[in-house]
Amino acid sequence: MSNSQYEKTTKNGVVRYRGRGKYDFETVHSIIDEAPILHVSFTPLDDDFPAILPMFGCMGLFPSDDTNSVGRTSSLYLHGYAASRMFRTSRGEDAGLKITVAATILDGIVLALTPNHHSANYRSAVVFGHAYLVTDEAERWWAMKHVTNSIVPERWENTRIPPTDAEAKATGIIRVEIETGSAKIRTGTTGEDRNDLKDEGLRKRVWAGVLPMWTRYGQPTPAPTNMTDKTPEYISRFVDDSNKQQEDYAMKVAL
Amino acid sequence: MSNSQYEKTTKNGVVRYRGRGKYDFETVHSIIDEAPILHVSFTPLDDDFPAILPMFGCMGLFPSDDTNSVGRTSSLYLHGYAASRMFRTSRGEDAGLKITVAATILDGIVLALTPNHHSANYRSAVVFGHAYLVTDEAERWWAMKHVTNSIVPERWENTRIPPTDAEAKATGIIRVEIETGSAKIRTGTTGEDRNDLKDEGLRKRVWAGVLPMWTRYGQPTPAPTNMTDKTPEYISRFVDDSNKQQEDYAMKVAL
Repeated sequence: MSNSQYEKTTKNGVVRYRGRGKYDFETVHSIIDEAPILHVSFTPLDDDFPAILPMFGCMGLFPSDDTNSVGRTSSLYLHGYAASRMFRTSRGEDAGLKITVAATILDGIVLALTPNHHSANYRSAVVFGHAYLVTDEAERWWAMKHVTNSIVPERWENTRIPPTDAEAKATGIIRVEIETGSAKIRTGTTGEDRNDLKDEGLRKRVWAGVLPMWTRYGQPTPAPTNMTDKTPEYISRFVDDSNKQQEDYAMKVAL
Repeated sequence: MSNSQYEKTTKNGVVRYRGRGKYDFETVHSIIDEAPILHVSFTPLDDDFPAILPMFGCMGLFPSDDTNSVGRTSSLYLHGYAASRMFRTSRGEDAGLKITVAATILDGIVLALTPNHHSANYRSAVVFGHAYLVTDEAERWWAMKHVTNSIVPERWENTRIPPTDAEAKATGIIRVEIETGSAKIRTGTTGEDRNDLKDEGLRKRVWAGVLPMWTRYGQPTPAPTNMTDKTPEYISRFVDDSNKQQEDYAMKVAL
């Protein structure tokens, strides 16, 4: 692994449409950070089907006192009640539980002239890593704040903090040290069969193009117990910025 | 397994917030059909990390000639180039490759007064099943049409069909015979700590509520090669209906 990209091997190499494969940290990590949900897979001790859990998480580099941090790579932090269960029911706590994490953002449905050329615009990342339950208190607090703010920026500092001891204990934090990973991205309009493009009758009859798609946030809906006057600016701004950014991207890559 | 729901066992049982668990076919299968993308996990032969692939798919019951179809349950059909690779690199083709499939729809971010009560509104399904590469030509055609129309209704019959032999061969179809599965659904507004609710100062300072979210389709964007006059009605209708349905649901469960 270099300091800026994952080495391409048979494990992480994109095989089909290899031109869509990306291996640089920036691309892989930004997809993980932008995906609204991650899918985490591991092999349970007591079962021969893989487990899959949807979880929240984000990339991060805990600023430890270790001065040898030059060249350290970001880890993936995951967050949730499921964390401790993963370790109770799984192999290999010492060497790290082997897990695979997928982040997928769909940006459009690509409707070609014939079904077998249909496709999708997407940003997809998969990473393979070793997962550890974080026990260091400083790193746990840092990660709780970091993951919360990765969902809605500035949320942590605008809530009742710190959590009580009981609340903090109920939240498991997992650090995944990534061994390797890759991303795959498709953008653009339809790719067509050459003979279909020569057939003007067909092109007049069948609509071809892209249905852009994105995650849209609606009007923030206060809880019945809410007593604030209005939606805080950091929330409205997040909703507006995210909606605009996701829509702009989906529309741009539809062409 | 009864005719209408998956038996609850340690494999599929919802442990945390068990009241959110659902086991009836209708709930589990409808989440699979509604999720825009599925995450498919299996254990490759040559690796000890699980593989995860984002794939398109839907539930379906192939109308075979078999008159013993009373009580047969829908299978999950998956579709894509990756299909054959899954079988090349995996164990157990005869008994079916063991795979786990997750379908996750995020409906909102739930922002409580304190970070550890933050949550999400979601519809999530996980099924465990035995996967087979479909070789019967009639079932393959039926499944290609069925999966295509599960993405955009009526699309198949409004394209250049049938695919050529080469196109059809390039598309792998997998049938997953589901062994068990379950769903988990959260709806509603924030759940708060009792002491936080007593603290009116806190409730005036911290905004609590739900950010509803859904998948929105934008204006269909014709390909540069498109020669139709306008967007066909079945596409506009799908975009409008899906946008309205997803928004209505997300707003409804935010309360």
